[in-house]
Amino acid sequence: MPEFLLLSRPTEALHTLLRALPDKAPGIEEIETSNGLGRVLSGDVHSPHPLPEFPRSTVDGYALKARDTFGASEAIPGYLNQVGEVPMGDASKFSISPGTCALIHTGGMLPDGADSVIMLEYTQLVHKGDSTKNIERKLSTLKLPVENPDVEIVRPVAEGENVIRIGEDVAEGQVVLKRGTRLRPAEIGGCMALGLTRLQVSSKPLIGIISTGDEVVPPYQNPHPGQVRDVNSYSLAALVEKSGGKPVLYGIIPDTLDLLKKAARKALVDCEAVVFTAGSSASARDMTAQVINSLGAPGVLVHGVNVRPGKPTILAVCNGKAVIGLPGNPVSALVIAELFVIPVIQKLLGLNNVPPRPSIRAKIAVNIPSQAGREDWVAVRLVPTAPLPLSGGVENWIAEPVFGKSNLIFSLAAADGLVRISPETTGITAGETVEVQLLD
Amino acid sequence: MPEFLLLSRPTEALHTLLRALPDKAPGIEEIETSNGLGRVLSGDVHSPHPLPEFPRSTVDGYALKARDTFGASEAIPGYLNQVGEVPMGDASKFSISPGTCALIHTGGMLPDGADSVIMLEYTQLVHKGDSTKNIERKLSTLKLPVENPDVEIVRPVAEGENVIRIGEDVAEGQVVLKRGTRLRPAEIGGCMALGLTRLQVSSKPLIGIISTGDEVVPPYQNPHPGQVRDVNSYSLAALVEKSGGKPVLYGIIPDTLDLLKKAARKALVDCEAVVFTAGSSASARDMTAQVINSLGAPGVLVHGVNVRPGKPTILAVCNGKAVIGLPGNPVSALVIAELFVIPVIQKLLGLNNVPPRPSIRAKIAVNIPSQAGREDWVAVRLVPTAPLPLSGGVENWIAEPVFGKSNLIFSLAAADGLVRISPETTGITAGETVEVQLLD
Repeated sequence: MPEFLLLSRPTEALHTLLRALPDKAPGIEEIETSNGLGRVLSGDVHSPHPLPEFPRSTVDGYALKARDTFGASEAIPGYLNQVGEVPMGDASKFSISPGTCALIHTGGMLPDGADSVIMLEYTQLVHKGDSTKNIERKLSTLKLPVENPDVEIVRPVAEGENVIRIGEDVAEGQVVLKRGTRLRPAEIGGCMALGLTRLQVSSKPLIGIISTGDEVVPPYQNPHPGQVRDVNSYSLAALVEKSGGKPVLYGIIPDTLDLLKKAARKALVDCEAVVFTAGSSASARDMTAQVINSLGAPGVLVHGVNVRPGKPTILAVCNGKAVIGLPGNPVSALVIAELFVIPVIQKLLGLNNVPPRPSIRAKIAVNIPSQAGREDWVAVRLVPTAPLPLSGGVENWIAEPVFGKSNLIFSLAAADGLVRISPETTGITAGETVEVQLLD
Repeated sequence: MPEFLLLSRPTEALHTLLRALPDKAPGIEEIETSNGLGRVLSGDVHSPHPLPEFPRSTVDGYALKARDTFGASEAIPGYLNQVGEVPMGDASKFSISPGTCALIHTGGMLPDGADSVIMLEYTQLVHKGDSTKNIERKLSTLKLPVENPDVEIVRPVAEGENVIRIGEDVAEGQVVLKRGTRLRPAEIGGCMALGLTRLQVSSKPLIGIISTGDEVVPPYQNPHPGQVRDVNSYSLAALVEKSGGKPVLYGIIPDTLDLLKKAARKALVDCEAVVFTAGSSASARDMTAQVINSLGAPGVLVHGVNVRPGKPTILAVCNGKAVIGLPGNPVSALVIAELFVIPVIQKLLGLNNVPPRPSIRAKIAVNIPSQAGREDWVAVRLVPTAPLPLSGGVENWIAEPVFGKSNLIFSLAAADGLVRISPETTGITAGETVEVQLLD
């Protein structure tokens, strides 16, 4: 098979792959909302009732009728009788009639008859020792002067002020979370507020991982001379896990066409996508392509991507499922999995709002040449230029490339992120500001 | 108790809290490396043996003695006898003597006698039909002319070229991962390469969560008028979980000093840190401070932080453990937990290399005024200005504030991240570029 005659650009290669994948609704499972961190909603979530379910105070103050406060000021305060204190967690037994008010705490339920709340800061308790004359003079400003008042108010409030009306946050039936939303702490809290203690989420897509190579042995085994332990099955499984998929390991298959085909066929039946990590030699890679093409139509879509590391990447769709052949080198395999496997998992999950890839801006420490037309991903370590502010603030970072002759997996373990060198350039210059995509 | 007389800045408040926490080594547990995603190493990891354990080829080519190639060029090639093909995953039965070579694949073990590998691209198989004279003429350039050669080489290689020596990647006994490292896919793969299939990691710190408020009922219950469901216990539990801690819920405790003290004392014994989410009213907050001060010395360190949302935050250390009083409002509680609870969990885990907070640069859509001296955190939604590149590339985002009158938890659910407005400024201007810290 002629190799790499025409190398695809990574972005185009990914488009080609995703376009060829049918839009299938993900499997659905019901879970406890409290166990939902990181899961993806399989349907829209509607509010079963309005929020709040009763008019609530947003401040500590006095619930009252707004019109009783009109005209009140520091110079000419208004006066009201206090009829009680709103209990937390219960409806009040009393109601507010003109000229009266009730002490209310933040979150308290507005008593009947009240339409607004004045903040405690704009009130004070009346000293019962005040001369009646003095109070009477002040009372004259109110529409309805009260006898023997309890509370002085020095500011008017508008109707509805400091109150959240029924349904003002969430109306009944409203879509509060859309299908495809990934559950973070805020979404979990929001569902709990509505009593949605169980949710329907996408099943974790099963991602089959097939390791090949006659020299590869399980990590639980002591390698003989010439053998190496399987790294890729486990680093890829962790990558699948962090991305919301469920890895299924098919072990290490010898470099024999029949055995590989058999394992691949089983994986393709069991799983929603299959990832191969082939040996690094040209013959091993060719065998992977041959195996993938035997799995079903349309087969290999992209063989060779103009990216470093990762040129020998194979992207395929067989019987409606994504099949990806990753390079055997552990660093290449992981970088390519970030670029191609994660988007496939996100599509299988039905994630509708793919979050921007978290990144940090840093100055690159050295010149890094690159070939025009090729996209390079360079592993870097981030070094702060100044003691780090603990919370927020301007963060200044230097990005130091982590080079390793053999691209050993530990070079990636030493890296905080990857810097992309665009195919449009021939490299980056020391001191240039780069976006570092964080590896998590 | 006088409230907020002197509000701390968030950064200083966090320093105060972390400084007052004793440096205790975290608990240790042993896990399967393959289950280690996100865990934190409790000790340095040393390499039990060198990597590679045998000299490996980094290319497809011929293993040979470098001196047999000296002087070889396109014009005057060198010729060698091929003595065999290196088996993958095994030592060769043959050895390389002067004038001979062996086919070797990427990752193959160098045969005895070979010191380098020439890439396949710089060789070709000799056509046995070549005139002997012609070959003899070419052979004259080699130090050791061979009879009836198999392989023609057109370039010299240096000793060690295309070979990784024993221990070149990792020396025996070398620290490959430091104590406090969080395990990502690359670290898991790296450990597997060394046969480290079990690892010692920090136990997940238990974080007690106490919800208070007479109006709060469990989300599994239908609230009566005046009651609301508990949101904070669950959103905080998810935040603790995503940060590597283990939440322990103590339920909803009525606003009674004795009951609160009892629950708090139990949580402080059971857990490594305790988080209260108090009611929002001033009296509820005061009670929290009182309870915390009863738990042990030094007690409350910070009461009131100059931050919005979250002013009524309480930071304390009691008997060597962090105790944090969060505001009752769900959004405030979650924002403050990002600022103060996560760093406490990271310290308890012994995380030595706190990753930079993932962020995205975006243009803010509107003016947002702020008070000088106060740090504001504004929840924003990120909207791409152009179709998103699927892999890397320049990403252009608009940050739209997600305002909610009541700071309902769903306003945070609609947010992709938080924008910090520094205490040094009086706000940000529409169109200004801001760093959006992503909420995950």
